[in-house]
Amino acid sequence: MKGIFYGIGVGPGDPDLITIKASKLFDELDIIIAPETKSGKGSTALNIAKPYLGDNVEIIERKFPMTYDKKALSISYDEIAKEIKELVDGGKKVGFLTLGDPMVYSTYIYLFRRLSLLDIEIETIPGIPAFCAIASKVGIPLADTDEILTIVPSVYYDFGSDKADDILKSNNIVFMKASGNIDELIDKLGETGHKDGSVFVSRIGLDNEVIEDHIENRRGIDNNYLSTRIAKKER
Amino acid sequence: MKGIFYGIGVGPGDPDLITIKASKLFDELDIIIAPETKSGKGSTALNIAKPYLGDNVEIIERKFPMTYDKKALSISYDEIAKEIKELVDGGKKVGFLTLGDPMVYSTYIYLFRRLSLLDIEIETIPGIPAFCAIASKVGIPLADTDEILTIVPSVYYDFGSDKADDILKSNNIVFMKASGNIDELIDKLGETGHKDGSVFVSRIGLDNEVIEDHIENRRGIDNNYLSTRIAKKER
Repeated sequence: MKGIFYGIGVGPGDPDLITIKASKLFDELDIIIAPETKSGKGSTALNIAKPYLGDNVEIIERKFPMTYDKKALSISYDEIAKEIKELVDGGKKVGFLTLGDPMVYSTYIYLFRRLSLLDIEIETIPGIPAFCAIASKVGIPLADTDEILTIVPSVYYDFGSDKADDILKSNNIVFMKASGNIDELIDKLGETGHKDGSVFVSRIGLDNEVIEDHIENRRGIDNNYLSTRIAKKER
Repeated sequence: MKGIFYGIGVGPGDPDLITIKASKLFDELDIIIAPETKSGKGSTALNIAKPYLGDNVEIIERKFPMTYDKKALSISYDEIAKEIKELVDGGKKVGFLTLGDPMVYSTYIYLFRRLSLLDIEIETIPGIPAFCAIASKVGIPLADTDEILTIVPSVYYDFGSDKADDILKSNNIVFMKASGNIDELIDKLGETGHKDGSVFVSRIGLDNEVIEDHIENRRGIDNNYLSTRIAKKER
């Protein structure tokens, strides 16, 4: 029997936001690999998938370094890719869980690019991105009719610099990973006039969920990595 | 018993990409309203949901005008909002189906804004956006690490004009509704150098699905409204 690898998006938090496709797959898999960010803290993606997992699937939790050191990341993903390749070559059906959607700012992308260079069958299953779940939950349309929607991985940008000005021209912006530099972002959005229908949400559908209409209340706080700021300008 | 209204995203096409949440809801609803674009053509959203619908739910197909005439649209959505309000006031659980995600360029947004002004309970259920399903299917990551992702409702833009230049600065662009003006878009993307990992997909997961790596092959064709062009620039 030939093995296969599945990259599976489990959505942002609520297990009910998993797709039928993913839930069916969980019954067929031999092995599930779940990313764990800090050792001992467990895997958020695995917790979301747990209600659908049978007794016979083998679960492997792998620690991925939380670092921006590209070399360390590269070694780590090379290792896991090699391990997956061996399992699939051995005839196993292997699933890798990833939060939200696999093709939107996911660490799965690093793994996918490596596996794509190897001779194995790969299928990726889309998931609900956090920003879609947030928009529905709080009742803020992300973009409609002729509007542009801009998605920004917030943590990589210096909002104190003029370089960010181009990004902030958009009337509809989703700032993902709005954690470390939230104070600069709040200052900048005060200048650009993104006020209408704006919201800050952390850990949608997970424990310690935060929904905050008043962004000023998030100032000076060590916000969670899984935080999103939706910012809209009146047209 | 108090009624409630649900706006339900059914994803882009494959019934298996419906969420567990939506599939559970279908068992509880009294009435499902499905948008039909051309009379007699049936509802695409309803076809996607059909495998999950029981015998007892009442299905109402409503024709929405395919027009950019804001007044005609407004009258049409006012009428359906009034009808939904009456059903919910009468204690009914009413679901409205919408393709993809309800909060991303959906006609549901027009309805949602009207219903939000009325005194009824509303819950919106997110769905997989077409661009996520496409990215997974064709194996093209939409954006990773520090990249910006720009979503453009293509049909509203004149790519022959300089006004579009600002939009096309982004290295990762999803053009939705890439139908009517595809020739101008192809010309423009030839100038901007968006070539790497680009693809054109129509009706993902539906009948008459098209996946085309060579965008030139879509030139001069009456492309379907449900078409998406992913365009990426080498970094």
